[in-house]
Amino acid sequence: MTGAGEFDLIARYFAPLAARDANSFGLTDDAAIIPPEAGHELVVTADMAVAGRHFFTDDPPDAIAQKLLRVNLSDLAAKGARPHGYILTIALPRPVSEAWVAAFAQGLADDQARFDIGLLGGDTVSTDGPICLSLTAMGWVPAGRMLRRNGAQAGDLVFVSGTLGDAALGLKLRQGKVAPDLSEAEAGHLRARYLLPRPRTAFGPRLIAHATAAIDISDGLAADLGHICRQSQCGAEIALNALPLSDAARAMRHKATADWSDIIAGGDDYELAFTVPPEAEGKVISIAKEVGVTISQIGIITEVKSLRFLDGDGAELPLSSTGFQHF
Amino acid sequence: MTGAGEFDLIARYFAPLAARDANSFGLTDDAAIIPPEAGHELVVTADMAVAGRHFFTDDPPDAIAQKLLRVNLSDLAAKGARPHGYILTIALPRPVSEAWVAAFAQGLADDQARFDIGLLGGDTVSTDGPICLSLTAMGWVPAGRMLRRNGAQAGDLVFVSGTLGDAALGLKLRQGKVAPDLSEAEAGHLRARYLLPRPRTAFGPRLIAHATAAIDISDGLAADLGHICRQSQCGAEIALNALPLSDAARAMRHKATADWSDIIAGGDDYELAFTVPPEAEGKVISIAKEVGVTISQIGIITEVKSLRFLDGDGAELPLSSTGFQHF
Repeated sequence: MTGAGEFDLIARYFAPLAARDANSFGLTDDAAIIPPEAGHELVVTADMAVAGRHFFTDDPPDAIAQKLLRVNLSDLAAKGARPHGYILTIALPRPVSEAWVAAFAQGLADDQARFDIGLLGGDTVSTDGPICLSLTAMGWVPAGRMLRRNGAQAGDLVFVSGTLGDAALGLKLRQGKVAPDLSEAEAGHLRARYLLPRPRTAFGPRLIAHATAAIDISDGLAADLGHICRQSQCGAEIALNALPLSDAARAMRHKATADWSDIIAGGDDYELAFTVPPEAEGKVISIAKEVGVTISQIGIITEVKSLRFLDGDGAELPLSSTGFQHF
Repeated sequence: MTGAGEFDLIARYFAPLAARDANSFGLTDDAAIIPPEAGHELVVTADMAVAGRHFFTDDPPDAIAQKLLRVNLSDLAAKGARPHGYILTIALPRPVSEAWVAAFAQGLADDQARFDIGLLGGDTVSTDGPICLSLTAMGWVPAGRMLRRNGAQAGDLVFVSGTLGDAALGLKLRQGKVAPDLSEAEAGHLRARYLLPRPRTAFGPRLIAHATAAIDISDGLAADLGHICRQSQCGAEIALNALPLSDAARAMRHKATADWSDIIAGGDDYELAFTVPPEAEGKVISIAKEVGVTISQIGIITEVKSLRFLDGDGAELPLSSTGFQHF
């Protein structure tokens, strides 16, 4: 971009994103306000993404923006929080491509409408290195009700939303690491799941009254369920047969171009893993139906403090396949 | 650092910083909580800093951390907000120097105690580029009372805290751009002012009842006072003679190794510029004394919408020296 500095970029592309919330002052001030919401607490979460590490430099800019926002929305969903607003800081190499910034901002605009969240403020700077993005998202939960990782109890049922492993397999396709015999639709599904998570923003807040623990799966089911087990001082037994797979992932499993470690240790799923006492099972299933999210019961919380993945014969998957360090 | 991953770094160096606030959950969760404070609103601000652009890669890590935090604290002070907590995201090149991270965290620990603020959460990632840091700070103001940029009225007095230009001159020394005939103490003062701002956290919140507009001077007095003028739909007349200079800056002015543009367009002062109706002058002066901050009246707000810097003879400093675009 020729001659357009930080102020021009902000005014042209980012200020419109702040128009949803008058308390952003249209980014004309150095700060935004968050007025309190009666009976609620603010939940805050943040993620950083660096080009070449967390996304491909040539990914579509709108998808880069949306993934960063959605990764944070997924964290809010796992906490049972309703999105409020976000702060975005961006380091861009010079010269800045105005087309890139325009597409990046358009991606945010689309997702702001989709997820009912608005830009509150941020910072735009130069870098001699790769693009570096940081997003802090804020949402509301009823006071004292945030879903945590530490409430799971022996006997609770373990559920996950959606399907697992798609994003990790999509990344492998993107990297050219596998050339599986998939239909265009199947390959497209996996690639899209890597590029753009679907945060469970409608579902998460409805779990508050029923789930004992929740997490969003960003590092793979094994690692993230491991967090729940460690912090809840319990373990879990997971049935590999029960793991929900997309048709594309199932096809790759079938042709042995995907193994269990892709499914449970690949990461980037941004599905919810959560635990539910048996008596709340029916309620949770009906909420999922109501909000249009598929959920699957994949196992049970145990008193024994180990996380085990069992095949149909009851044989345990070797730990090396789980990408998970025992605790 | 050999073998220590993100989780190790977080547990060893950042989790202790989160111990001040139980609602950070010791960084063991993906999110923190901010409980509401009765009668208050949350003020949110953010800044990003990239090595080689916003700090020197070989600056002391504790000072890098403290400057990033203090730049945000300065924004909160300008809003009249009392610090609450902060979110920190960090991209570090591999291999990470554990000594660097330890010193960086120690800088934060010292400033947390100094400014009564605690780490709430964040993210630590890898980069193939320079160190990239982003900090989102949050503070409390009484509801509806945040200091803005848009309340200045013709006739209001313009004040600044501290001294101006020191940081810009310190940067010039650091870059070896000037070799002025200064005493060690004078040169040290300027360098220190560049390395470490002194946010006016005790003073800012006390201005709420008295100032009509406020801003922290990060881009230079001319640019930042320009923001107040533009958003308040007014202008200002500033007396160059009245600008507060440190002995070191005065010495450089004297020897013509510093000109007015260094003082009013150099930036990085992190002092407060604010406007006060004449009837509140006495009160503001006595508050400044109480909190131990030096303030100087440097000019007056005008109805004429231009920002003018006048020398002792009433001659106007050419605009090119102000680093400021007219509006």
